[in-house]
Amino acid sequence: MRVAVLGTGTVGRAWAARLTELGHDVVVGTRDPAVSRERDEGWAGARLATFAEAVAGADLVVNALSGAVCEDVLTALAPSLEGAVVMDISNPLDFSAGFPPTLFVKDTDSLGERLQRALPGMRFVKAVNTLNASLQVRPPTEGSVFVAGDDEQAKALVVGLLTEVGHRDIIDLGDITASRGLEMFLPLWLRLMGALHTAEFTIKVVRPG
Amino acid sequence: MRVAVLGTGTVGRAWAARLTELGHDVVVGTRDPAVSRERDEGWAGARLATFAEAVAGADLVVNALSGAVCEDVLTALAPSLEGAVVMDISNPLDFSAGFPPTLFVKDTDSLGERLQRALPGMRFVKAVNTLNASLQVRPPTEGSVFVAGDDEQAKALVVGLLTEVGHRDIIDLGDITASRGLEMFLPLWLRLMGALHTAEFTIKVVRPG
Repeated sequence: MRVAVLGTGTVGRAWAARLTELGHDVVVGTRDPAVSRERDEGWAGARLATFAEAVAGADLVVNALSGAVCEDVLTALAPSLEGAVVMDISNPLDFSAGFPPTLFVKDTDSLGERLQRALPGMRFVKAVNTLNASLQVRPPTEGSVFVAGDDEQAKALVVGLLTEVGHRDIIDLGDITASRGLEMFLPLWLRLMGALHTAEFTIKVVRPG
Repeated sequence: MRVAVLGTGTVGRAWAARLTELGHDVVVGTRDPAVSRERDEGWAGARLATFAEAVAGADLVVNALSGAVCEDVLTALAPSLEGAVVMDISNPLDFSAGFPPTLFVKDTDSLGERLQRALPGMRFVKAVNTLNASLQVRPPTEGSVFVAGDDEQAKALVVGLLTEVGHRDIIDLGDITASRGLEMFLPLWLRLMGALHTAEFTIKVVRPG
């Protein structure tokens, strides 16, 4: 599958490397490919390109951009992304007052919904934003992940990809408004990271009986 | 132990019944004991009394009141609760716009912190607000619960009680500010309840390796 991974942070790099390893044709989109290439020459076999070049002809777009910038970047690409499936891993973290970050949208709205409203031509699927990057692409044997989105076909594509990287318990939470709960999980995730002294944990939903 | 359970909703009734079963001396505090008694005659062996009578001489107070009213009720009892340990199960749910509820405090503050600030003579321990009432008092074999609070001795008392009712993985998230994450988990909990068609689930924190 031709995958465009937008963003060159920890999340974007993890997905680019893993999907390349699995045989997908991955192009990493970045504001300035030359600068990104200078920072790291490897890129695990994935090509670096401008955002516009990366999304051209992509079957799936991975939004691994920071929550603060992704709406602007995707809006600029909108004409090329009519009908595109966007796996949205972003979180609306606001670090302006330091650590811990607060959420710049929450409770009665979410970043997932905001993106879907602003860009109705794209099909957003909120996914794996509740996990550390390394576990998003190489999940432990136990643990649950979640998807949310308005388009069933788009969700099926994302669920297929998550299955391919190794996720076994993928819970469909329904439409894109479930992004609220998924993004509002971040404060608990951050406290757990502090208490456990590691980001390498996951949560498993246990159904008794 | 003399336990005062404040509140006669699902959560208060579950704790009153379970702690009585375990041999504790439980008094359930309610606004009008006669009215509560008429609604249900059983009360599983626990006595019903006014809020003030219930907390007199209690070793532990269980805040099983609704988020909307608990600050007022506890404030009125403050003179009797100097130094008291309060296990706070409340969630700041606002149902004024229907379902799903929103949170009337979040992100940069929490109900747990608000109570601790308003009532500095009490020692609040946020606990088990992430679980359905029935699982709070009779946990499944797998699953994690969380505590948060500023007073280590108070937390130890609550952890002891949680252990007694059957919790096995009790994670201390640190001071009372962790209430933010614990209360902001509710929107995800509500979506999971919808997706799983049951409230009888829990989450387990899985540490790989």
